[in-house]
Amino acid sequence: MKLNTNENPYPPSEKAVRAIGGVAAAALRLYPDPDSTQVKEAVGRFWDVPADHVFVGNGSDEVLAFVFQGLLHQDSPLVFPDITYSFYPTYCGLFDIPFTLLPLESDLSIDLAKVPASAKAVIFPNPNAPTGRALTRETIEAFVKARPDRLVVVDEAYVDFGAESCAPLTRVYPNLLVTQSLSKSRALAGLRVGFAIGQPDLLTALQRIKDSFNSYPIDRLAAAGAAAAMDDRDWFESNRKKVIASRETLTKGLIEQGFAVVPSQANFVFAHHPSFAGGDLAARLREKKILVRHFAKPRIDQYLRITVGSDAQVATLLATLKTITT
Amino acid sequence: MKLNTNENPYPPSEKAVRAIGGVAAAALRLYPDPDSTQVKEAVGRFWDVPADHVFVGNGSDEVLAFVFQGLLHQDSPLVFPDITYSFYPTYCGLFDIPFTLLPLESDLSIDLAKVPASAKAVIFPNPNAPTGRALTRETIEAFVKARPDRLVVVDEAYVDFGAESCAPLTRVYPNLLVTQSLSKSRALAGLRVGFAIGQPDLLTALQRIKDSFNSYPIDRLAAAGAAAAMDDRDWFESNRKKVIASRETLTKGLIEQGFAVVPSQANFVFAHHPSFAGGDLAARLREKKILVRHFAKPRIDQYLRITVGSDAQVATLLATLKTITT
Repeated sequence: MKLNTNENPYPPSEKAVRAIGGVAAAALRLYPDPDSTQVKEAVGRFWDVPADHVFVGNGSDEVLAFVFQGLLHQDSPLVFPDITYSFYPTYCGLFDIPFTLLPLESDLSIDLAKVPASAKAVIFPNPNAPTGRALTRETIEAFVKARPDRLVVVDEAYVDFGAESCAPLTRVYPNLLVTQSLSKSRALAGLRVGFAIGQPDLLTALQRIKDSFNSYPIDRLAAAGAAAAMDDRDWFESNRKKVIASRETLTKGLIEQGFAVVPSQANFVFAHHPSFAGGDLAARLREKKILVRHFAKPRIDQYLRITVGSDAQVATLLATLKTITT
Repeated sequence: MKLNTNENPYPPSEKAVRAIGGVAAAALRLYPDPDSTQVKEAVGRFWDVPADHVFVGNGSDEVLAFVFQGLLHQDSPLVFPDITYSFYPTYCGLFDIPFTLLPLESDLSIDLAKVPASAKAVIFPNPNAPTGRALTRETIEAFVKARPDRLVVVDEAYVDFGAESCAPLTRVYPNLLVTQSLSKSRALAGLRVGFAIGQPDLLTALQRIKDSFNSYPIDRLAAAGAAAAMDDRDWFESNRKKVIASRETLTKGLIEQGFAVVPSQANFVFAHHPSFAGGDLAARLREKKILVRHFAKPRIDQYLRITVGSDAQVATLLATLKTITT
């Protein structure tokens, strides 16, 4: 049971699958659209933004790589939380970007008021990973609005499971960029499509790198599937409701077993038990063929990050944990 | 009629198409194998090299980008031909790599003897693009062997249409890297898969960048299709024979109309007419709905690069050209 990489427990939209199947075999001999216009338009329809406010990449990891390389190397160090997506310092290493860590509060929340005044660029996931905690759109808007000279990138890989997206704010604030993924809330981790939403002036910096790096990152099958997935709102709404409901079941069950659970608005929960070390619990679960994620890192080494599975998977996990913790 | 981007005129292997169709819809919710082992093993079977001598990327453009970033920034300027794949200087710009151009001979061939002795890294396509001219494996081997301290990258995007691949030499020479693409000779431009073959020490530099950039560049559908395409040798042999035969028909027809044609071992020909300017010919063909490639560049601005289409497309092109040139 794989509850360690935050994949969606359900298959993707049948409309997405049909769109992939609808790509003619003969069309595979031809290069795809270098601009992935089909995907940009579908994202634009979903978020009610013009297609030229959308940048598409090979997973949100490629989009983020371009964001780091093209936008986050400013004349003061980039700021991101000390506990966050592990690729941020990796990108900084790859592109030689100086950075300053913003320590999370003791409840693992982000306090944007503590971002250094000198910071010209800030990136954070909302909800944050691996904590699952989210900031409100209002909080982020106030932060973006206060300093029009500061670029704010909100990495919304997990936003669709209950947090508020800042995508609508990008039309108002030229210093705001939002990134999203189809891997989680569209159950298409196997297809590799992610995107950024922002005003064209910001996207130009991403486009320039993309045009020098790889003209055709999105293949014909991925483009067809991604566009159809964005358009299938019924699947999306029904899926995220199911995942949110299972998350509440999981959270309640963990609390009943004595875990402290960080309030999550993602498709995973971050929890620790006062009497059992995080690493030990992860190892015991692995013996029983259940994979969860443990980070051997300061401040969070007692925690487990557990992907929200189906209700059946949640029940199995809770029952297995009970044999360990009682 | 699209004869401007060197796509294969025929649909891809049916086995590749079936392998794509065989990927379970439910599997798309899961991340793909970050190492694309399935593709590496298929490339290894085809070229008789171990899977750990293969690096896979999102099209050979992504592979080449990593090669430039990770291997070609040496303490002397990189060397490549003055007339060659237009992305080489672009990558150098993106990654700040100094370079020196090696002027092609008057017959548009590459003379490796003229590479400066100080060069620590050299890259060239074989056959070269847009000329279509190839060097023999023997010539390249002598060049690689003479200077074990110099890295030689042979970009074999077009090698399967009659030139000799240096892939078998990579087992012998640790300073040789070969890149290939599935876009041309496997008719899978729409799928975005390319690879490099070299000894593990060279590939480590590519892997390090890939691991800091994007963990999962090859989606599940592309991996399945690419592996099956590499394994379908019958399709491959039959397809390249057809393309080579059509190229000979095209070459003969162009010469009959007075064109000078560079001897091509690629799926395109590079030709010019003594009485008609290249740009004018391209424009006249475009009026008749035939796209060919014209480069408004010194030394080659009188040439057309024409993709080898099916026999029917070749016949239409020749008939249309005849109405222009006679």
